Amino acid sequence: MKIIDGKSVSEHLLADISLKLQSQKKNRSPHLAIIMVGKHPASETYVNAKIKTCEKYGFKGTLYHFPETITEKKLLDEIQKLNDYHEVDGIIVQLPLPKHISENQVIETISPQKDVDGFHPVNIGKMAKNLPALLPATPGGILELLKFYQIETAGKHCVVIGRSNIVGFPMSILMGRNSYPGNCTVTMCHSKTQNLEFYTQNADIIIAAAGQPELIKGNMVKEGVVVIDVGIHRVPDKTKKSGFKLIGDVEFDTVAPKSSFITPVPGGVGPMTIAVLLKNTFETWLQSNK
Amino acid sequence: MKIIDGKSVSEHLLADISLKLQSQKKNRSPHLAIIMVGKHPASETYVNAKIKTCEKYGFKGTLYHFPETITEKKLLDEIQKLNDYHEVDGIIVQLPLPKHISENQVIETISPQKDVDGFHPVNIGKMAKNLPALLPATPGGILELLKFYQIETAGKHCVVIGRSNIVGFPMSILMGRNSYPGNCTVTMCHSKTQNLEFYTQNADIIIAAAGQPELIKGNMVKEGVVVIDVGIHRVPDKTKKSGFKLIGDVEFDTVAPKSSFITPVPGGVGPMTIAVLLKNTFETWLQSNK
Repeated sequence: MKIIDGKSVSEHLLADISLKLQSQKKNRSPHLAIIMVGKHPASETYVNAKIKTCEKYGFKGTLYHFPETITEKKLLDEIQKLNDYHEVDGIIVQLPLPKHISENQVIETISPQKDVDGFHPVNIGKMAKNLPALLPATPGGILELLKFYQIETAGKHCVVIGRSNIVGFPMSILMGRNSYPGNCTVTMCHSKTQNLEFYTQNADIIIAAAGQPELIKGNMVKEGVVVIDVGIHRVPDKTKKSGFKLIGDVEFDTVAPKSSFITPVPGGVGPMTIAVLLKNTFETWLQSNK
Repeated sequence: MKIIDGKSVSEHLLADISLKLQSQKKNRSPHLAIIMVGKHPASETYVNAKIKTCEKYGFKGTLYHFPETITEKKLLDEIQKLNDYHEVDGIIVQLPLPKHISENQVIETISPQKDVDGFHPVNIGKMAKNLPALLPATPGGILELLKFYQIETAGKHCVVIGRSNIVGFPMSILMGRNSYPGNCTVTMCHSKTQNLEFYTQNADIIIAAAGQPELIKGNMVKEGVVVIDVGIHRVPDKTKKSGFKLIGDVEFDTVAPKSSFITPVPGGVGPMTIAVLLKNTFETWLQSNK
């Protein structure tokens, strides 16, 4: 059993991008614009982490913070300005948004060329057609992990659990494409799936993104399985100073002994998301000629 | 065992659209523009069939036929003109195109609002995100068949065989969405799949779009399976006056007795494709205010 060390893979990836960045003769750094609406302590923590990572690796990160009361039209206008602003390479919108603003409208207003979260229908559609596209960050990060550990995927049975637009659905598409990583026989499981263990017991690769703490247990997997755990849940734990611990969608203690590779929580998939966000921003910056 | 009669379902669907069309107070009919480049006897047959069906149901169908030597730029300009022409509601490009013209470039030039073949990345992406979109015609036709026969799909195991951009891949996405038809646990099988019969034997619904004659045989399916056969192959048959017969990706004689529902070849999925093409054109026409 080998632990997939997302923290060190993400650092490796970011250091590599940082090196490439320095070798480019451009008179400005890649610039990520982060849009946030209203006050959300959790979102603020994420946004700060993103901006800090930007700075650490030679990127510029700017927070565009709007009040809860901003109208949808005004927000779309602001996004349009960032689309047109040649010194911005990537635009992301920190979710959630207030209820009076349509998330889809916002995502579709971001220029597909600057959509470094990979959520725009154009990028999802190109991804599905196996054309060059900005990949959603978490699925993109999982591909990077599989590549880094040279995990074989062709002809394997990959079971994806959870069909969110952000992780599960794109992941199921990516693992089935004619590519590496990819070329898996992919089974997409979700809340309507009956007899989940039938699928997981036959899986060579499990990608758990159901958002359910410790859904996948040792008796549900076969020997040698590769396990990617996207879940992250905070549960009370008196033995910890903080009073809580983080767990995933996989019951680590029972699944790990049967796995050939497994991601821990935290330190598995989590750190990869921000690395791919910066990778995407680096790529759009490379393509920009301004 | 019940035969799914695609011919009569398609006629039903088209007659219904034709009725709705007549009840609309618009001063022009829905108009489908078909682009064809070069000479292809098979394509000409398909195009003629489409135009005839248009006329039969109160649509206008126009063939825009360009010589094999047309440049890519000129073709893209012509598509742009049709995008801008308010009396055209739907645009399709008959494939194949000459080698010097990029199929992707052509598809991406068609306005997503007039992309009645549903191949534009915007439509594929919206479909994947379960947003309103123009669906690719053959997958859309299969959904219509499942609806017409009120076939239960939620929680069923649907195995899709073949991952083409036109049928298999979109089909696997559609069957997994939170929708009806949909909500299946979906397994996407393809040329790299090992042990295909393991998946088909466990399938409640099989959608065969592999392009391999009689790939699916009776011993590969379970009792009560629903079988949708997208394949169509011409094989020699001395007992027929024409000297050939049409077969699908499914060995009908051995699979049909075990099925609860099955599409024949011909007369199953085939007739639905053109019906959905017209349905899509009708919808874009409804949304046009000119």
